[in-house]
Amino acid sequence: MPLVRIDVNVGRSPEQLGGISAAIHGAILAVYGIPERDLFHILTEHPLGQLRAQDAGLGFERTDGVVMIQIFTQGGRDQAAKSALFDRISSELAAVSVDGADVFIGYVENGPGDWSFGFGRAQYVTGEIAVPAS
Amino acid sequence: MPLVRIDVNVGRSPEQLGGISAAIHGAILAVYGIPERDLFHILTEHPLGQLRAQDAGLGFERTDGVVMIQIFTQGGRDQAAKSALFDRISSELAAVSVDGADVFIGYVENGPGDWSFGFGRAQYVTGEIAVPAS
Amino acid sequence: MPLVRIDVNVGRSPEQLGGISAAIHGAILAVYGIPERDLFHILTEHPLGQLRAQDAGLGFERTDGVVMIQIFTQGGRDQAAKSALFDRISSELAAVSVDGADVFIGYVENGPGDWSFGFGRAQYVTGEIAVPAS
Repeated sequence: MPLVRIDVNVGRSPEQLGGISAAIHGAILAVYGIPERDLFHILTEHPLGQLRAQDAGLGFERTDGVVMIQIFTQGGRDQAAKSALFDRISSELAAVSVDGADVFIGYVENGPGDWSFGFGRAQYVTGEIAVPAS
Repeated sequence: MPLVRIDVNVGRSPEQLGGISAAIHGAILAVYGIPERDLFHILTEHPLGQLRAQDAGLGFERTDGVVMIQIFTQGGRDQAAKSALFDRISSELAAVSVDGADVFIGYVENGPGDWSFGFGRAQYVTGEIAVPAS
Repeated sequence: MPLVRIDVNVGRSPEQLGGISAAIHGAILAVYGIPERDLFHILTEHPLGQLRAQDAGLGFERTDGVVMIQIFTQGGRDQAAKSALFDRISSELAAVSVDGADVFIGYVENGPGDWSFGFGRAQYVTGEIAVPAS
């Protein structure tokens, strides 16, 4: 973990999609200090019209370049850490031409025992890998 | 938020899909009283066979018209509110020709600080927008 | 519930995809003892490159046959139950030719009142069906 779901509209090249994934991972690495290979992304492209993301009343418009990000990870990090992550994701995505207005993020927490990275083992519980500090 | 994932089988027109999204949003607006532009939907169409939703033992059959809905939103609302939302979603979907037997809903809670609506800011925490009353 | 999201790369036949779904459901039935028709799967196929799942530092490589599984279900089960489920999912998937290295699982909890199986009713709350024992 984190497991990150990334939903975008069709129209970007594989290289651009890879850049978005790398930008999000870079932000998580930088702010949360997790291992580099702690990388789990599910990217889904959608035909136009199937992603709807308005502004929640903030007063801006998004484009078809919207990137909807859902992060599932262990609880325990405080708001300062989460807010720093959101900020860094936005700035890393800006570097790959995703406008700040097009970055939507939702975050869902669980626990270390809620993950199995392979072979049906809960590796944070067995101690095979260390739980990242919160 | 809420962020709503809507998974359906292929076969509906864009207009029908838009009607389903609008029905779900209308239900959330009516029951939860959130701002109209607090709209975040991710709709995914699937080839037949990739959505499986049985009846949990209740004794009914679904059709290929099944609409699988997953709602991610802040915690705090009580069961009466959630139950009213489920009921309203079903009745609004009935108005766009989705049978009650085809409406499946799961609900996952987080907190106000778990959302960024754009620009990498956690706007419920910064105070840029008010947290909807629970 | 559980609601299970299964994300895989393109390349398997419908029969193979059905086998993966059946293996996961069989594991849940065996370990959690839920009703057989308590089956809710959303399977999504992705073009190569859109699923990224590294090893979290454990020291192995996955193949394009990776199966990314996300389980949403009620809280209350202890770690022993969850760990047993992860193990059983891996062994059931091995029986349909999915290697243990290709099985990634994340788990997210909610409550019985967070589900509506049809008709807009929260059937665990109304008492129409019994809440599975944790």
